[in-house]
Amino acid sequence: MASRSVLVYGGKGALGSALVSHFKEHSWKVLSVDLFANENADVNIVLSPSDDLDTQSTKVNAEVGVALADTKLDAVLCVAGGWAGGNASNKDFVKNTDLMVKQSINSSVVAAHIAAVHLKEGGLALFTGALAATGPTPFMLGYGLAKAAVHHLVTGLASPTGGLPKDSTALAILPVTLDTPMNRKFMADADFTTWTPLSAVAEKSFEWATNPASRPATGSLVKVTTAGGVTTFA
Amino acid sequence: MASRSVLVYGGKGALGSALVSHFKEHSWKVLSVDLFANENADVNIVLSPSDDLDTQSTKVNAEVGVALADTKLDAVLCVAGGWAGGNASNKDFVKNTDLMVKQSINSSVVAAHIAAVHLKEGGLALFTGALAATGPTPFMLGYGLAKAAVHHLVTGLASPTGGLPKDSTALAILPVTLDTPMNRKFMADADFTTWTPLSAVAEKSFEWATNPASRPATGSLVKVTTAGGVTTFA
Repeated sequence: MASRSVLVYGGKGALGSALVSHFKEHSWKVLSVDLFANENADVNIVLSPSDDLDTQSTKVNAEVGVALADTKLDAVLCVAGGWAGGNASNKDFVKNTDLMVKQSINSSVVAAHIAAVHLKEGGLALFTGALAATGPTPFMLGYGLAKAAVHHLVTGLASPTGGLPKDSTALAILPVTLDTPMNRKFMADADFTTWTPLSAVAEKSFEWATNPASRPATGSLVKVTTAGGVTTFA
Repeated sequence: MASRSVLVYGGKGALGSALVSHFKEHSWKVLSVDLFANENADVNIVLSPSDDLDTQSTKVNAEVGVALADTKLDAVLCVAGGWAGGNASNKDFVKNTDLMVKQSINSSVVAAHIAAVHLKEGGLALFTGALAATGPTPFMLGYGLAKAAVHHLVTGLASPTGGLPKDSTALAILPVTLDTPMNRKFMADADFTTWTPLSAVAEKSFEWATNPASRPATGSLVKVTTAGGVTTFA
């Protein structure tokens, strides 16, 4: 069997790095897109933050095309993102919301276009939403609205007319809190047994990428919850 | 009674101009925020498109503060926006989605912060969503995701902890098609009796701004539909 390939958008972040390593362990060809290179990836596409979004997308798509030659991707996994709190009266509300839009929406939009152009038929396009954003998020308004936009994107991509290749699957994972070094640093007193290990997301993403029959229905917003160290995708 | 004041975000657009004129006819003090001045407004705050969002917001808030002196706004009406079609495979998908984000999300976010800072208690903060974005929008993915984000913003603003002043009302109007000169130009063969006249939105907005008892519950996504020339807000 020809080697399989995956593109990880945000491949140098905490979750992205876990995905890059996991797919590499299974001998997939891994492309990472991020502001910094991930030395474990086969191909690094490094974004220039000074480029406007359209220029960024054009460059990324061209570089992906060169890296793939005449092949297609089995999966596109968009795990870029960030977090900021605050309601509308917060002095940093506009600045933080702008950052959330750039980190979550812009990355997902470029990844969606990459998937439309470079994913193979029956492939997997995975995005990162947030369980909290299925309801109002007054205490983290910018974060919530950006994730709500990602959820909406995925429901549209799941349509036969959404632009993805035939028979592909568009999913959003909706975690609560991922067990990352950054979250451990800023929430040192939390109950870590309710946090989702990055390995759990990496293993499930790999299963979905490898075996289409294991995937939830296209367009699903998959709730990712962890209790007592056990993670459930539902 | 002291004169009442309203800020129209997008006050030089088709709907914005209708709002500015309607409130002026009723002797309100009208502030318009847009890329171009509206000569019917009492105060024009003209945006510099080259400013980043945070700078734009800081400038607008300062100018609103100067214009209001020690008074507060009765209403903030955000009607900036635009439209673009296309799914994820469209060659202009990323560029158009970026535009939708800037036109709908960024304007709403700045308007939300203005409302948090300058609205009076019991005031009205009105935003513009889209009925279509309550479901998947594969044929206009960027437009839909931007409007879904606006809907999410409004549900968060409606919370007592969302940052708006006490007893204020946050609403989104969800039109289908507004009867604007631009829409008439690009959809010349459509059935105009199903399009919502700008005057209907202006009259209803004025009613809600003037009479709190007439408003839907805070956080409502108010569907605006027109049939046989009659417009319903529900």
